Amino acid sequence: MTRKLHLNAFLMGVGHHEAAWRHPRTEPARLTDVRHYQELARIAERGTLDSVFLADGVALRGNVKHNALGGLEPLTLLSALAAVTDHIGLIATVSTTYNEPFHVARKFASLDHISGGRAGWNIVTSAGEAEARNFGVERPPHAARYARASEFLEVVRKLWDSWEDDAIVRDRAGGLYADTGKIHPIEHAGEHFAVGGPLNVSRPPQGHPLLVQAGSSEDGKEFAARHAEAVFTAQQTLEEAQEFYTDLKGRLAAYGRRHDELLVLPGISPITGSTEREALRLEKELEDLLIPAYGLAQLANMTGIELTEDALDGPLPDVSVETEGAQSRRRLVVDLARREHLTVRQLIARLAGGRGHRVLAGTPEQIADQLQEWFFNGAADGFNIMPPILPGGLSDFVDHVVPELRSRGLFRYEYEGRTLRGNYGLARPRSRYARPEAVVAG
Amino acid sequence: MTRKLHLNAFLMGVGHHEAAWRHPRTEPARLTDVRHYQELARIAERGTLDSVFLADGVALRGNVKHNALGGLEPLTLLSALAAVTDHIGLIATVSTTYNEPFHVARKFASLDHISGGRAGWNIVTSAGEAEARNFGVERPPHAARYARASEFLEVVRKLWDSWEDDAIVRDRAGGLYADTGKIHPIEHAGEHFAVGGPLNVSRPPQGHPLLVQAGSSEDGKEFAARHAEAVFTAQQTLEEAQEFYTDLKGRLAAYGRRHDELLVLPGISPITGSTEREALRLEKELEDLLIPAYGLAQLANMTGIELTEDALDGPLPDVSVETEGAQSRRRLVVDLARREHLTVRQLIARLAGGRGHRVLAGTPEQIADQLQEWFFNGAADGFNIMPPILPGGLSDFVDHVVPELRSRGLFRYEYEGRTLRGNYGLARPRSRYARPEAVVAG
Ligand SMILES: Cc1cc2nc3c(=O)[nH]c(=O)nc-3n(C[C@H](O)[C@H](O)[C@H](O)COP(=O)(O)O)c2cc1C
Ligand SMILES: Cc1cc2nc3c(=O)[nH]c(=O)nc-3n(C[C@H](O)[C@H](O)[C@H](O)COP(=O)(O)O)c2cc1C
Repeated sequence: MTRKLHLNAFLMGVGHHEAAWRHPRTEPARLTDVRHYQELARIAERGTLDSVFLADGVALRGNVKHNALGGLEPLTLLSALAAVTDHIGLIATVSTTYNEPFHVARKFASLDHISGGRAGWNIVTSAGEAEARNFGVERPPHAARYARASEFLEVVRKLWDSWEDDAIVRDRAGGLYADTGKIHPIEHAGEHFAVGGPLNVSRPPQGHPLLVQAGSSEDGKEFAARHAEAVFTAQQTLEEAQEFYTDLKGRLAAYGRRHDELLVLPGISPITGSTEREALRLEKELEDLLIPAYGLAQLANMTGIELTEDALDGPLPDVSVETEGAQSRRRLVVDLARREHLTVRQLIARLAGGRGHRVLAGTPEQIADQLQEWFFNGAADGFNIMPPILPGGLSDFVDHVVPELRSRGLFRYEYEGRTLRGNYGLARPRSRYARPEAVVAG
Repeated sequence: MTRKLHLNAFLMGVGHHEAAWRHPRTEPARLTDVRHYQELARIAERGTLDSVFLADGVALRGNVKHNALGGLEPLTLLSALAAVTDHIGLIATVSTTYNEPFHVARKFASLDHISGGRAGWNIVTSAGEAEARNFGVERPPHAARYARASEFLEVVRKLWDSWEDDAIVRDRAGGLYADTGKIHPIEHAGEHFAVGGPLNVSRPPQGHPLLVQAGSSEDGKEFAARHAEAVFTAQQTLEEAQEFYTDLKGRLAAYGRRHDELLVLPGISPITGSTEREALRLEKELEDLLIPAYGLAQLANMTGIELTEDALDGPLPDVSVETEGAQSRRRLVVDLARREHLTVRQLIARLAGGRGHRVLAGTPEQIADQLQEWFFNGAADGFNIMPPILPGGLSDFVDHVVPELRSRGLFRYEYEGRTLRGNYGLARPRSRYARPEAVVAG
């Protein structure tokens, strides 16, 4: 079988572009309407995409004066999407910094059961200050957040393994529901957590829901190499993307993992048109709707760099890239401004489309060319699709770019697997508590 | 309009009876199958019931060797039920002891949006020891749990109020999404919690999702009188139920609340048959499938009283009713055993049907008679229906008892409201942050 690319649809309100809510092709009143997201999931499934993904933060981030914020909590929402879809993977972001592993293990196990094996978890460590303030604590330093994340994940995996696959006997005549020798207390006692277990949900269909990660700092990459099975990343140029790809894959061996056990999915925001001109017109329409004050607030949010409107037409001031917040995003933004000699105004317009992700405006063929180039040149195993406007930008991609990718032999016509792991081509982990001779189910 | 009763369907795996999973009318493999619960919600909606309800605990409680345990997390599940229903209320249990108010406020706000105003929260304080062990802490004493619960609720309500109803302006031409003067940080700083806010979900359709409570200790009743809008309770006799009802309603005035602002819903497990004999046969079939070891474990779980099989044919030993666990349930069980001079074996058979709730076996008319008697005699505003087997016991109730209640003028033919509050006849709270002159939506 030839190598195929993997596509994830990153769903974000009425679109990824900052001005999406002001564009005539969106309906911002649908921000909290479940039917909007159900429609998006169905569109993605029509395009045989691998998965849909929801980002998350546990604070009102960004400037709600000028953007459509205040939407739905991802896990709750994905469960409602599971109910109206059959194949598409469902990936929710949940932070390890302000949560408890028992709750998180349980909710993903439930979503995995509800969706028949389609759950995935994007593991984040909550870079923002505002998030800490909603939990009565100081934001822990960057390294401490990743240390907690690692132990958190260890506990969650133990809980997912705590019921062996064949623990449920269901012998009604004999009155034996489960073989309790196959349901294990985990008795975890670590630096951050003490958890008895077992989980109170039986083993999820996938064994472990898919593990996704999106941090690109040194700690973030080490964490990904050790734990993640898919990585979302923001890369602007082929060279940067190749470097990131090689770097990350190169770290796997140290954890006894093969290259194909982790997929690298750079984000792209596709602005499609039937002609290049039409695509550029849509891009311009969105740019004309931008609000500078919002862009500056967003820049501060993403990078910690606080500027006023006076600074709009000058270059980005000198700043260090060390911060306790999101290190990789800050670096990307600073590099972009330097490399292309952008004014602050130009920089915020560039970020408005994809918050640091690559924006591709063009015809379906032009977009497919770009994806193909990265896919064949060691920069990507697939892509995280971030449509500028929703649902329109997603249906444009599914109806025009996907057929192009299919006809080039780069993408599936039909779902091959029945689970998210199956579609991503990843193995189902067996329970650590199962004896070697035990048979692992489906 | 004459007073109508309110009915909630308490959903519990394949039935409330301990031996339900062994009965030929159930399919225990459906325990983690979302379609099972979707079918139950649709049956309840066909019967114009007010709501469905899911209990919860954050530990594997009870003896999984002999019962079908390890099902789905309630909030995740209810969201998938919202997707396939239009009217029925969706009530999930969430503990205030091992959670954070920001997460809980957010998840219920999301479920309320997703369901179009049908979310309800059964607030519990987690009486079990096993639950504490999954969060690395000692179980807090009973009074401390309720003190935390009270502040928890205060924070959650502030978060639900943090976006005023008219905060979202959505002026696309002017570029103004929200009036940030109507989105309020809550800046809560109390004994247990420090939460900045605002919530990152806009105000839920119901203002506040419905607040339900089920503790019957002194602290529990005070908490209910202050905060709850519906109370689930286990009452065995008309006199006890009247006493509880009068007691609870009598406590409302101290909090400036009217009698009709809190509904009292005793639990009943209806075992229906087209003849009394048929009902009693079903009851006997279930009793014959009981496993004594399981009943003893369950007794220990509910009351803290640990006994061996040797004790089965003697009376319940003398025990105090003071405990740090669930006080009201322990008292109910002890009282029941004393009043009816039951042996331990008889006691566990009595508890097997409804874990302390009243079991009513009979024809639809006989069951309706009982409900009517309690409803007209100051013992109940409605009932929490706990079918012994599912889905069969629920469809029996909906298809045979509900029509009987309707024809007596006791129950609705059609949903009157569009939200859970609407159907329970409860007002929509306005935001505490709204100025007096502001108009409240919806
Ligand atoms: C595509 C993509 C999506 C992300 N989604 C989230 C998110 O939903 N929530 C969040 O807190 N961080 C998110 N991040 C940020 C990272 O996950 C990470 O937490 C942050 O960059 C800090 O880690 P680092 O310092 O290792 O980069 C995302 C990053 C990328 C590239
Ligand atoms: C119908 C009903 C349902 C209940 N459901 C739960 C539940 O899901 N989870 C839980 O921890 N306690 C549940 N309880 C127990 C109470 O909510 C309460 O936490 C317990 O009785 C301890 O409080 P108390 O000492 O005030 O009675 C339920 C009680 C009743 C009557």
